[in-house]
Amino acid sequence: MTVRLATAFLFGTLLGTGAMAQSSSPQFVNTLMPQPAHLSVQSGTLELTTQFTASEDKFHDARLDGAVARLLKRVENQTGLQIATAPASGSATLTVTVDGAGEVIQSDDENESYSLDVTASGAHLQAATVVGAIHGLETFYQLIQPQGAGFILPAVSIQDSPRFRWRGLMIDSSRHFQPIEVIRRTIDGMAAVKMNVFHWHLSDDQGFRVESKVFPKLTELGSDGDFYTQDQVRAIVAYARDRGIRVVPEFDIPGHALSWLVGYPDLASGVGSDGKGNNQGPYAISRIYGIFDPVLDPTRENTYKFLDKFLGEMADLFPDPYMHIGGDENNGVQWKNNPRIQEFMKAHNLADTAALQTYFNHKLLPILQKHGKKMIGWDEIFAPGLDKEAVIQSWRGFDSLAASAKAGYSGILSAGYYLDHINSAEEHYLVDPLPAGSDLTPEQSAHILGGEACMWSEHISPRSVDSRIWPRTAAIAERLWSPQNLRDVDDMYRRLWVESVRLEDFGLLHLAAEDMGLRKLAGTQEITPLKTLAGVLQPVGFSERYQLQHTSQLTPMDHLIDAVRPDPPSRYQVKITVAEYLKDPAGATAARAQLAAWFQQWVDAAPKAQQLMAAPLLESAAARAQQLGDLGATGLQALDYLDKKQNAPADWKQSKLALIEEAKKPVGLVRFTVLDPLQELVNAVP
Amino acid sequence: MTVRLATAFLFGTLLGTGAMAQSSSPQFVNTLMPQPAHLSVQSGTLELTTQFTASEDKFHDARLDGAVARLLKRVENQTGLQIATAPASGSATLTVTVDGAGEVIQSDDENESYSLDVTASGAHLQAATVVGAIHGLETFYQLIQPQGAGFILPAVSIQDSPRFRWRGLMIDSSRHFQPIEVIRRTIDGMAAVKMNVFHWHLSDDQGFRVESKVFPKLTELGSDGDFYTQDQVRAIVAYARDRGIRVVPEFDIPGHALSWLVGYPDLASGVGSDGKGNNQGPYAISRIYGIFDPVLDPTRENTYKFLDKFLGEMADLFPDPYMHIGGDENNGVQWKNNPRIQEFMKAHNLADTAALQTYFNHKLLPILQKHGKKMIGWDEIFAPGLDKEAVIQSWRGFDSLAASAKAGYSGILSAGYYLDHINSAEEHYLVDPLPAGSDLTPEQSAHILGGEACMWSEHISPRSVDSRIWPRTAAIAERLWSPQNLRDVDDMYRRLWVESVRLEDFGLLHLAAEDMGLRKLAGTQEITPLKTLAGVLQPVGFSERYQLQHTSQLTPMDHLIDAVRPDPPSRYQVKITVAEYLKDPAGATAARAQLAAWFQQWVDAAPKAQQLMAAPLLESAAARAQQLGDLGATGLQALDYLDKKQNAPADWKQSKLALIEEAKKPVGLVRFTVLDPLQELVNAVP
Repeated sequence: MTVRLATAFLFGTLLGTGAMAQSSSPQFVNTLMPQPAHLSVQSGTLELTTQFTASEDKFHDARLDGAVARLLKRVENQTGLQIATAPASGSATLTVTVDGAGEVIQSDDENESYSLDVTASGAHLQAATVVGAIHGLETFYQLIQPQGAGFILPAVSIQDSPRFRWRGLMIDSSRHFQPIEVIRRTIDGMAAVKMNVFHWHLSDDQGFRVESKVFPKLTELGSDGDFYTQDQVRAIVAYARDRGIRVVPEFDIPGHALSWLVGYPDLASGVGSDGKGNNQGPYAISRIYGIFDPVLDPTRENTYKFLDKFLGEMADLFPDPYMHIGGDENNGVQWKNNPRIQEFMKAHNLADTAALQTYFNHKLLPILQKHGKKMIGWDEIFAPGLDKEAVIQSWRGFDSLAASAKAGYSGILSAGYYLDHINSAEEHYLVDPLPAGSDLTPEQSAHILGGEACMWSEHISPRSVDSRIWPRTAAIAERLWSPQNLRDVDDMYRRLWVESVRLEDFGLLHLAAEDMGLRKLAGTQEITPLKTLAGVLQPVGFSERYQLQHTSQLTPMDHLIDAVRPDPPSRYQVKITVAEYLKDPAGATAARAQLAAWFQQWVDAAPKAQQLMAAPLLESAAARAQQLGDLGATGLQALDYLDKKQNAPADWKQSKLALIEEAKKPVGLVRFTVLDPLQELVNAVP
Repeated sequence: MTVRLATAFLFGTLLGTGAMAQSSSPQFVNTLMPQPAHLSVQSGTLELTTQFTASEDKFHDARLDGAVARLLKRVENQTGLQIATAPASGSATLTVTVDGAGEVIQSDDENESYSLDVTASGAHLQAATVVGAIHGLETFYQLIQPQGAGFILPAVSIQDSPRFRWRGLMIDSSRHFQPIEVIRRTIDGMAAVKMNVFHWHLSDDQGFRVESKVFPKLTELGSDGDFYTQDQVRAIVAYARDRGIRVVPEFDIPGHALSWLVGYPDLASGVGSDGKGNNQGPYAISRIYGIFDPVLDPTRENTYKFLDKFLGEMADLFPDPYMHIGGDENNGVQWKNNPRIQEFMKAHNLADTAALQTYFNHKLLPILQKHGKKMIGWDEIFAPGLDKEAVIQSWRGFDSLAASAKAGYSGILSAGYYLDHINSAEEHYLVDPLPAGSDLTPEQSAHILGGEACMWSEHISPRSVDSRIWPRTAAIAERLWSPQNLRDVDDMYRRLWVESVRLEDFGLLHLAAEDMGLRKLAGTQEITPLKTLAGVLQPVGFSERYQLQHTSQLTPMDHLIDAVRPDPPSRYQVKITVAEYLKDPAGATAARAQLAAWFQQWVDAAPKAQQLMAAPLLESAAARAQQLGDLGATGLQALDYLDKKQNAPADWKQSKLALIEEAKKPVGLVRFTVLDPLQELVNAVP
């Protein structure tokens, strides 16, 4: 799809003739996300009526029954048609043919493929496994589109399977605890876009978040009371499995383990009060963020005895074949400062602390194996001597991932998928775990298992977490599922915004929480002008916020930055509309009208927004309201000069570019999303 | 507060100088809801800083600790001030002095009073019981107001206690199951407005919703799998108790009990296949609504054995002193048609089925007493011979309640508080369980324990339930707590809208769900014109929907009616603004400008809304968009004629009144909220 088409779509949406209204034409509007590997559009449509039924005609089990029942409920909810919500026996509108259950414990080897054929007379979903069928049911749901007064599915033939076997999302439940409801609705969203790994970061310096019955002090002393019970974990694992999603727990060791040491200080590598590593502590949960000295002691057998018991307990709780041991950001200070550890390193020929950590991992591996687990860890575990079975999760980037693949290690990419960096969906979308033109051999390429979006939680609350994850993660999910050559950003956004609305079905608040936040901040229901402002703002990224606000775990997360959304539609919309307009200022009347309407809206909203921003928690961003009006006026003036093909006064351009430059500053911890195209517009004025 | 003042406030809000912005003045803006019994405003303010602390200086227990910790967290969240969120020892900004825990099991005799004194140097909360303190903490929270760049509490002296001891909300979890999250956030909202009884309607013809270990078939066969486990119930009871709220379970018998009979058909009163009441059934959960013949058999000892065991089990699960036995809407058909039961009635001198039901209740009473419970039931249990200990919940009205009070029975009022009738907050607010001028003696008046808002669930979903309950229930809560002579509707709305925003803290979706629904219905994020329309619409009431849509438990609840809110601000705002304007059309320039702005907004939104309403689920209400534009144009024309003091053309008034009349029809299951004032405006044109 070209920019022109995307823009046409955009205006359609804005004028109220978007995806839904297009339904009066029988044309198939592809809103699938992720795009399937192979899709061919046939002629005809399958009408959805109250007679709609679904049946499982070969194999079925409780998991498939549940998935079909959920689909039926969602079809009903989407179409308003009252249908029988129990799977039918015998012939049905949708027949689901599954060969068998698939793996007893879903692994990264699970066959996830399916095919879906829709004709005017019915739909047929085929899959080797229940997981494949679960993915196919999501495709079926996404194919539903309005037509006239009802809903149809276009006739299509789809053969689909994922490009990568590991399509994950990590949530850090340590730095800010995330309630079970958040985890549950996130898993729903993941299933909707065919992700298959929920990576649960359960321990870190700032909190230990899962109940251990063997070592109860882990949460008694290391969690502030915010942790998941084993019953809750089991329920989440079952919930995820029902949706074709594995749960990979992470227990970050030997670094990032301060919360462990609060209850079990003997595990630490400090010299202790006797200088020999005994009588250690007391340690406390860290409230601040960063890399801390205290780490587990890899030289004492007691550490491994503890880990054996603890990881054994967790291995029972989390059935996934993998266990993530973190392994990142150990600064080695305690190891360097402890004479006993230094001696141990000499005795074992360990040249540096990296070698000692590899020694630690090497000792860990048989423990994990004993409990039936494979090891996965962050980039840092990739060091000489690492066992070939370990999988590496790269936060450093593709080069690091490629290097480990060349060395024969499997890995997944997370660099470029850090949601807390507040990049656009577009930027995430174009990051590829295996980019075209990489120099990896086919064998090495096979070591690239996939990728994971990462939701680190320094700066998120249960209210903001959804908008930090969604809808951007859907773009990452498509990157990991769909063919490599699918890189059409315009079409991605068109579909992303439809998917974003669909995701609200699960109670995800990624769209609703902005207004909730604005109402709270302003203390009133009447937030229309604030909404206009918030619509062209987004949060600053992780590092910037950390530096500007000096955040800690105790910093309240309730400012404007916590309400506004990353990559709101305005960013892409204004960008393509300005581009469309500047291609032909005289001819692009729709684009010009749309720009003028936006600019006028900003001008109108500014003074009212400014009044509302007298509220204490908005005051630090109050300058944004004034700027909004100035930017709108600038845009209107630019359009005016361009209309008249008239030179602007001598200092106009300079002063407006200065204004835009000023607006780029991270005032109030938020950024405007529309400055680059506005700058182009000003620059285009003769 | 006069209408004039309320209007001034309203414009303040709309122009962005509302409650929050007024903070730059040191004046106390009273946003307390419910209003306390006695409040005197002192001079000075208590500034909230990061040094804010709270301590408990006399008695404390886990419940008080928890309540104080929650307050601290909310203060932090409200003010953005990072404070120590653990209760302090020693002197503190807020000192909480509580005499003792209060009742082991909170009853309607609990002392709920408290006093709160705020001075420039600190705040002091005193209460006899923890429940009193919990109420006082809510008042403390509601006193927080912005001032300049920060937050303060005004210096006040408050002595507060409730007018009524029973201030409840009933949720029907049977007709549509409500997930635990809904129950939890509803209880949070109740606590915020000092309600103290959560009445949980757990069984009815359409579903049995609580696990029984003694009679597992109640849920196995009678719930579609949607029920609360006993662990969940215990957690909710504890959650409510922590917030000063009792949980009164209702098991509706002998009528409304179809779901019991699915698993235990022998309990029924039918004649059965042998004509003697044996081999009964099979029965099925009812999908439709209404009053059904099958009811429990009051003549057989087995029924009482069953109830003894079952109610005993539930008595352990629900510690409240009361158990609600329903007792409503038994049509007596099965009793009349069963010769054995007719014989029994003759033998026992029971003149009619009402007498038989009283016999049933009479047998039930010692069972409840044996399990330590008092009986409460609906109006119908009030029949000659009813034991004096039974409490009556009146859905019929004050006269019925007064009659029972005169007969010596205690009772609570629910007539006038039915949330599914879609009345305005104003209407609910003015209903009084003990209205001024009632002819009850003081002794009889003491029998009026209070009231309960009722959320029957024929037409609600987990997405719509919040907007059906909130914020209107806060107005009912104030009626039940605050002095009888507080009946200022203008001031009630002013405070209600502030409280409505505060209630979002608990994740309540009463404000957010409208947009979520509109996005889903239109299939796009771009819903601005639809929002304008939805803002002046509300659902039709229960009976009307039932009649127009022929709803059943299986009817999807996903139309426009399910998205829009009862009594949206537009209803009251347009009403008072038209009233303000018509008092002095030439002078009320602010009111005129506001009306013109609204009317113009309707005119502008109408064509765009109409396009979006081509979506299948909006089509049935599409006429509303056209009407919106017509109403806006009518309003603008009326203002124009009134400005010019000019006679409208001969047929103008007639045609516009006809248009308004037409718009009153329940098209699309929604109603306009603004027609009455618009009609006044048209009628005012010369």
